[in-house]
Amino acid sequence: MLLAAAYVSDARYNRNILFETSPQSIRLYRLYNHQVMEAVTYFFILVDLALALFEDPAVYLLPVWATCAVELVCLLIFTIRLVHFAKVTPRNKFWKDMKNICVILTLLLTLFDIILYWTLIATGYYIIRWSRVMRPLFVVNFTESRQIRRAFRNIRNTLPEVANVFFLFMFSMVMFSLMGLKIFSKRHFETAEGTSYFNNYLDVFFDLYVLVTAANSPDVMMPAYNASGWYAIFFIVYIIINTYVFMSIFLAVVYNNYKKHLTNEVMKLVLLKRCKMIEAFKLLSVKKGTEFVVKEAQWTQLVKLVAPDISNSHRELLLKVSQEEQEKYIGKDSFIRLADLLNIKVITMKTRIHPIETWMPKLYNSYVSQAIQKMVKHRWFVYVFDIIIVINAIFIGLDDENSMISNAEWIFLSLYILEILLKLYVYEPKTFFARNQFWNWFDTWIIIAALLATTINAVLKSSGGYTSQQVLDFVLILRVLRLVRIVDSFQRFRVIMNTVINIGPTMLVFAGLIVVVYYVFAIIGMELFKGKIKFLGTNSTDPAADFCGNPKLINSAFAMSKYCKNNFNDIVSSFIILLELTVVNQWHACLLLANGFVAVTHPSARIFFCIFHIVVVILIINIFIAFILEAFLVEYSLHKTEVETAIEKNIQELGLGVQDDDPLDGGLVSNMETSDRELGSVEDAKTSFNTLKFRIASKRYRTVDAMLQRMFEKDLNLDDEGPSLEDILEMTPSDLNIHNPNF
Amino acid sequence: MLLAAAYVSDARYNRNILFETSPQSIRLYRLYNHQVMEAVTYFFILVDLALALFEDPAVYLLPVWATCAVELVCLLIFTIRLVHFAKVTPRNKFWKDMKNICVILTLLLTLFDIILYWTLIATGYYIIRWSRVMRPLFVVNFTESRQIRRAFRNIRNTLPEVANVFFLFMFSMVMFSLMGLKIFSKRHFETAEGTSYFNNYLDVFFDLYVLVTAANSPDVMMPAYNASGWYAIFFIVYIIINTYVFMSIFLAVVYNNYKKHLTNEVMKLVLLKRCKMIEAFKLLSVKKGTEFVVKEAQWTQLVKLVAPDISNSHRELLLKVSQEEQEKYIGKDSFIRLADLLNIKVITMKTRIHPIETWMPKLYNSYVSQAIQKMVKHRWFVYVFDIIIVINAIFIGLDDENSMISNAEWIFLSLYILEILLKLYVYEPKTFFARNQFWNWFDTWIIIAALLATTINAVLKSSGGYTSQQVLDFVLILRVLRLVRIVDSFQRFRVIMNTVINIGPTMLVFAGLIVVVYYVFAIIGMELFKGKIKFLGTNSTDPAADFCGNPKLINSAFAMSKYCKNNFNDIVSSFIILLELTVVNQWHACLLLANGFVAVTHPSARIFFCIFHIVVVILIINIFIAFILEAFLVEYSLHKTEVETAIEKNIQELGLGVQDDDPLDGGLVSNMETSDRELGSVEDAKTSFNTLKFRIASKRYRTVDAMLQRMFEKDLNLDDEGPSLEDILEMTPSDLNIHNPNF
Repeated sequence: MLLAAAYVSDARYNRNILFETSPQSIRLYRLYNHQVMEAVTYFFILVDLALALFEDPAVYLLPVWATCAVELVCLLIFTIRLVHFAKVTPRNKFWKDMKNICVILTLLLTLFDIILYWTLIATGYYIIRWSRVMRPLFVVNFTESRQIRRAFRNIRNTLPEVANVFFLFMFSMVMFSLMGLKIFSKRHFETAEGTSYFNNYLDVFFDLYVLVTAANSPDVMMPAYNASGWYAIFFIVYIIINTYVFMSIFLAVVYNNYKKHLTNEVMKLVLLKRCKMIEAFKLLSVKKGTEFVVKEAQWTQLVKLVAPDISNSHRELLLKVSQEEQEKYIGKDSFIRLADLLNIKVITMKTRIHPIETWMPKLYNSYVSQAIQKMVKHRWFVYVFDIIIVINAIFIGLDDENSMISNAEWIFLSLYILEILLKLYVYEPKTFFARNQFWNWFDTWIIIAALLATTINAVLKSSGGYTSQQVLDFVLILRVLRLVRIVDSFQRFRVIMNTVINIGPTMLVFAGLIVVVYYVFAIIGMELFKGKIKFLGTNSTDPAADFCGNPKLINSAFAMSKYCKNNFNDIVSSFIILLELTVVNQWHACLLLANGFVAVTHPSARIFFCIFHIVVVILIINIFIAFILEAFLVEYSLHKTEVETAIEKNIQELGLGVQDDDPLDGGLVSNMETSDRELGSVEDAKTSFNTLKFRIASKRYRTVDAMLQRMFEKDLNLDDEGPSLEDILEMTPSDLNIHNPNF
Repeated sequence: MLLAAAYVSDARYNRNILFETSPQSIRLYRLYNHQVMEAVTYFFILVDLALALFEDPAVYLLPVWATCAVELVCLLIFTIRLVHFAKVTPRNKFWKDMKNICVILTLLLTLFDIILYWTLIATGYYIIRWSRVMRPLFVVNFTESRQIRRAFRNIRNTLPEVANVFFLFMFSMVMFSLMGLKIFSKRHFETAEGTSYFNNYLDVFFDLYVLVTAANSPDVMMPAYNASGWYAIFFIVYIIINTYVFMSIFLAVVYNNYKKHLTNEVMKLVLLKRCKMIEAFKLLSVKKGTEFVVKEAQWTQLVKLVAPDISNSHRELLLKVSQEEQEKYIGKDSFIRLADLLNIKVITMKTRIHPIETWMPKLYNSYVSQAIQKMVKHRWFVYVFDIIIVINAIFIGLDDENSMISNAEWIFLSLYILEILLKLYVYEPKTFFARNQFWNWFDTWIIIAALLATTINAVLKSSGGYTSQQVLDFVLILRVLRLVRIVDSFQRFRVIMNTVINIGPTMLVFAGLIVVVYYVFAIIGMELFKGKIKFLGTNSTDPAADFCGNPKLINSAFAMSKYCKNNFNDIVSSFIILLELTVVNQWHACLLLANGFVAVTHPSARIFFCIFHIVVVILIINIFIAFILEAFLVEYSLHKTEVETAIEKNIQELGLGVQDDDPLDGGLVSNMETSDRELGSVEDAKTSFNTLKFRIASKRYRTVDAMLQRMFEKDLNLDDEGPSLEDILEMTPSDLNIHNPNF
C-alpha cells in the first residue's frame, strides 16, 4: 500500500524518483518529498546566492570568515540533501544522472576554492573566490527546480539551430559590409559630425550591425542618401533582410524548438505518469470476474495516504466519479485517472449562513437589511464605484498641495472602506475571501494598507509637522493601485487579464532563469570592474564626482550623462546595469555604457558586453516571447478535459453544482450571488453533502504545463500498456516525435 | 464538358466565380481568367499607382491634363474589367460582394474628383486631388489580388482584439505615469541636461511611452536612480510589464488571430474545391455497375482542356495514378483528387544524351574526357571552388588600387567561367538549367553579368581613361554576390535557405500590403508637407541649404543632422521617409524627424506620425512576424501528402523514378549525377516512357497556402458530400471553427 501510494504521488506531482521498493526507502522517499525538507533546501539556495550581497564588493560588507562559514553550512545542507536523494534512487540511476554529478563537482570545487583561498591568505597571497560563479548551478540542478532545469535544457537544445541561423546572419553581415565598403569608401562622404564614412572594414561591419538594431537609423544612411537617392536601395535591402527577415527567423527557430522540446518533455511526463499508475494498479488490484479491480476500501486508504489534505466530502465525490457503474470496486481505467482527479482543484463551497444572520436573524432579515443587500448586489452598485474611481483618478492627477484635494482623499478612502464593509455584510466572509477571489483580496489589502499608511502619515504630520517621504510615497502608490480595479469591470479586458494572471506563476520560472544568467554575469562583471567607476552621490562637492572618481573618464560621454551609478560595485548595481543592457535594443546607450567600462579597463572588456548582448537578446528574450506566445495559444485553444467533464457531470448529477465561472470567470461577485440563490432549490436533496457545493476551479488557476499534459492525455490509448518506465526515461526526443501534435 | 472543365480549373486555382452554366458565360469566364487579361489589369493598376510619380509634388512633373488623361484610361480599363466580372457572376452574388461595391464607389468618386478639379480650375479655384488616396483600393479589391485582400481581411479581423490589448496597455501607461508623477515631481530631480524631471503629466506619459521602445533607457531612469537605488524598482517593474509583457502579448494576439483566420480561410477553400470537383464529377460521370465513374476518354479530354500545357507523358502518368485497379474508368475518389494532381509539380526529366556525345561520341567517351567528367563530379571539385571563393573574398577585401589585385580579378573571373563551362560539358545543358536548379541559374547569371560589366569597364578605362562609376559599382556588387554561393555548400544552412526561398513569393504579398499602406500615408504626407522642407544638394553654397530652405529650421537638430533630404516632396522620398519611420524603434530619430515637420507646419502634424507609428509598428510588423513564424512552423512540420505519395508510388512502380531530393534538396548537382547513373538500370524497361524520368518537385517550390490546404484535406471525409457551394460561401468563421486543427 505504501509503495502504491508512493507511485501515485510520484505520478501526481510528475516526480521521477522512486525505484526501490523496501518500506524503509519508501519512508525515506516520503521524507525527501516533504514540504519542510523542500523549503529548507530552497532557503539555503537563497542564502547561498544572497552571500554575494555581503562579499567584497558588497552592499553591506561582512568579514570573509563569516560569509565562508555560512557558505560551508549551505554546502553541508546541499550534501545532506544529495545523500538523501542518493538513498532513494538506485545507485546506477543516480550516477547516470548528469545533474547529480554536476552538483557533486560544484560542491567539491567550492570546498576546494574555500580551502585554497584560506591557505593562500595564510601564506600572504590573495586569490579571487572563483567558485562564486558556480553558485547558480545549485538553483539549476536541485531536483526541486525542475522547471528552471527544463528551461535550460530547452535553451541547450535550441542552441545548435540558433547557431546555424546566427552563422548565416553573420555571413550576410560580412557580405553586406564588403559591398558597402566597396561602394562607399571611394566616394569620400562625410557624416553629419564631419568624420569619414564607411572607410574601414571593421567600422562598416560595426555600423551595419548597429543598424540591425535600428539604433543609428537613419543617420548611417544619410550621407549616402544625400549624395544620391539610389544608394538608399542598399540600405533598404539590408534592413529588410537583416533587421526584419533574420530577426523574425531567430524568433521562429527559437519558438519552433521551444514548442518541440516542450511537447517532448510533456509527452514523456504523461507517459511516465500512466506507467506509474499502472504499477500502482498492479499492486492493489484483485481479480473480480474477468477483470482486475481495486476495492473501495483499498482505494480510500490510498487516497488518504496520497492526499491527506482533502476533505472527506471531496474524497467521496472522487469515489463517486471513479466508481462508474460498479459499486464497491474501481476499474483500471478509472484508477489510472486518479492522479489527474487528485490534481483537479475542486472548490468545496460550503453554503454557509452569514454570521450576522446566525447571531441576529431578525435584524439581518429586516426590511432595511434586505434593501441594503439588494442594493449591493445590484449592478449599479459596481457602476457607481467605477465612477468614483474615475473621479478619484482625476483628483490624484490634480495638485495635492491644495488642502481641499488632500481632504478629498479621506472621503475616497472612507467610500472604499464602506464598499468593502457593505460587501462583507452581504456576502458570507469566507466565501468573499475564497482563494479564487483575486480582486476581493486585492481590494481589501490595498485599502487596509492605504488606511494604515494614510493614518501614519497624518499622525506624523500632526505630531511634528514632519512627513516621512517613504510613507507618503507608499500612500501615493497605493492610491494609484486602487484604480487598477476598474479593469475588472470591463468584460473585454477580462480575458486578457485572466491569461496574464494565469501565466504569472510560470513567468516566475522565467524570472529564475534570468536571475541565474544575471548572477553569473554579475559575479564576473564585479571581478572585472569593481571599484573602477565610483558614484560619489548626487550632491557631492568632490571634483572627482564629475568624472566618476576615475581620471580616465574626464569629459567622457559616460560621465557627462551622469551614468556613474551604473557600475559593478555591488551585486544590486550589477543586476541593474545588466537589466539596462538587456533593455537597450538601442545600442547608442549600450555602447555608452560599454565604452565607459572599456575606458577604465581595457578594450577587450567590450567582449563581455557583446557576449551578454547576444546571450540575452537573441536567446533569452526570444525564449521569453516564445513562452508567452505558447501560453496564449494554449489558453485560447484549450477546452474542458474529459476527466473534468466527468467530474462536473457527477457534481451536477448529485445536485451539488454551482454555475461554472469558466470561460469569463470575472463575475466573481455575481457568481456568489447565483450560488446563494440556487441554494434553496437543492436544500431538500437528501444526499450526505447537503450543505456543500462543488465547483471545478476555473482555467485561471491552471499552469501551462498542466494544460499541455491534458492535451496529450487525450491521444493516449488507455488499454495500451505503453513502453516501460525504463524505456521512457531513456527515450530521445526523436522517439517521441511521432506523437507530436503539430499539424 | 466545358462546364466541368470550368469547375475543375476553378478548383485548381482556388477561384470562386462560376455560377452560370450557359456555354457563352463559360467562354466569357475562360476569357476573364485568361493570363493576358489578368496581366493587362495588373499593368493598369501599376500605371494608376505610378501616376503619383508625375503629379505635383512630382519626381518628374507632367502637365495635369496628361496625368488626368492616363488616369481616365485606367478607370476605363477597370470599368471594363468589372463589367466583365459582372457578366460571369450571378447578379445577386455580384451586388452582395463588398469588394465590387467598393470598386464601383472608388471609380465614381475618382471620376467626380477629376470633374470637380477641372471645373474649379476653369473657374479659377484650386482644389487638391483628394481621390488619389483611394488608388490603393484598386490593388486591394481587384479579384486577382486575392492574397493581399486576405491579408487585409486578416488585419481587420485582428483589430478588435488588438484594440483591447491596446486599451489595457494605455491604461497601464496612464497608471504608471500617474504614479511616476506623484513620486518624482516633488523631488526636484534634474536630468543630465539640467532640465526639470517628471514635472508635468503629459511629459511623464510621453517619456514613459518612449521608454516602452527602450529608446531613452537608461537616461530617463538615471536622475531618480542617482538619488536612490529604490527608485529603480519603479522603472524595472514598468519595463517588465510594458516593454516585455505587453509587447509580447501584442505579438501573441496578432499571431493567434492570424493563425485562426488563415486556418478558416484555407478550410473554406478546401471545402469549396471539393464541392466544385463533385459538381464536375456529376456532370461527367456515367453509371457502371453500382458505382458512378468517368470514362478514360472523357477524363483525357477534360485534362487537355483544363491544363493544355502539360505533356502527354505527364498526363499518362496522372491517368495511371487515377485509375487505381479498374482500367478505362476513373472512380469518384480519384476524380476528386484531380485538381490536386494537376497542381503537384511533376518534373519530367528526359534522360537526354549530352549534345557533344551525340555529335562526337568518340571524343566525349575518350579517356581524357571521362577523366574530366569524373573530376567535375567529384566532391573535391566543389571544395576547391569553395576555397577559391574564400580567397576571392579576401582579395575583394584588400585594397583594389593595387594593380596586382585588380588583375587577380580577371583570374577569378576566368576560374568561375571555367567552372561553369566544365559543368556544362559534363551535365546535359537542359538538365543543368532545369527550373529547380536555383544555384545553377544564380551562378550563371552572376558570372555572365560580371563578365559583361568587367569588360565594359575595362574598355571604358583603356579607351579614355575614364571609368563609369555606375558600371564599377555594378561590377563590385556582382563580385560580392558571387561569394553568396558558398552558402549552398554547407548542409546546415540549406534547410534555412530553402525555407527562405520558399516563403519568398508569399513575402511579396506582404510587400503589396506595405505598398498599399505606405501609398496612402505618402499621398496624405505629400499634401501636408510638400515643399516645406527643401533639399538643396550636398555641395550647395546657398545659405538656405543649412536650414533645409525653411527659416523655422535654423539651428534645429533636424537640419544639424543633415536630414533635409528626408521630406515629402515626391512619392519616392515619401516612401523612404516612411521606411525610416518604420525602422526606428528608436524614437529618438523618429522624433527628430517628426519635430522637423512639426516645426515647419503645426504641432498637430505630430498626430500623423503617431498614427503611422501605431499602425505600422504594432499591426503590420507583428503580422509580418506572425507570417514568418507560421511559414517556418508549417515548413518544419509538414511531410509528404497522401496524393503525392500515391503519385510517387506509381512513378516508382513504373520504374521511372529518380531519387527524391526532399527534404534536404540542396545537392542539386549530385542528384543529377544519381539520375544519370540510374538510367542504365532502367533503360530496358519496356514502358512507353522509356526515355523519361519523373520526380515530384521538392517542398521548396510549394507556397505556404498550398501546404496549409493539404494539411486540411486529410481531415475531410471523401464520401461525405459536405455543405453546398452556396452554404460554404456564406459561412462565418465560427462555422468553420470546429474544424480548427489547433490542439
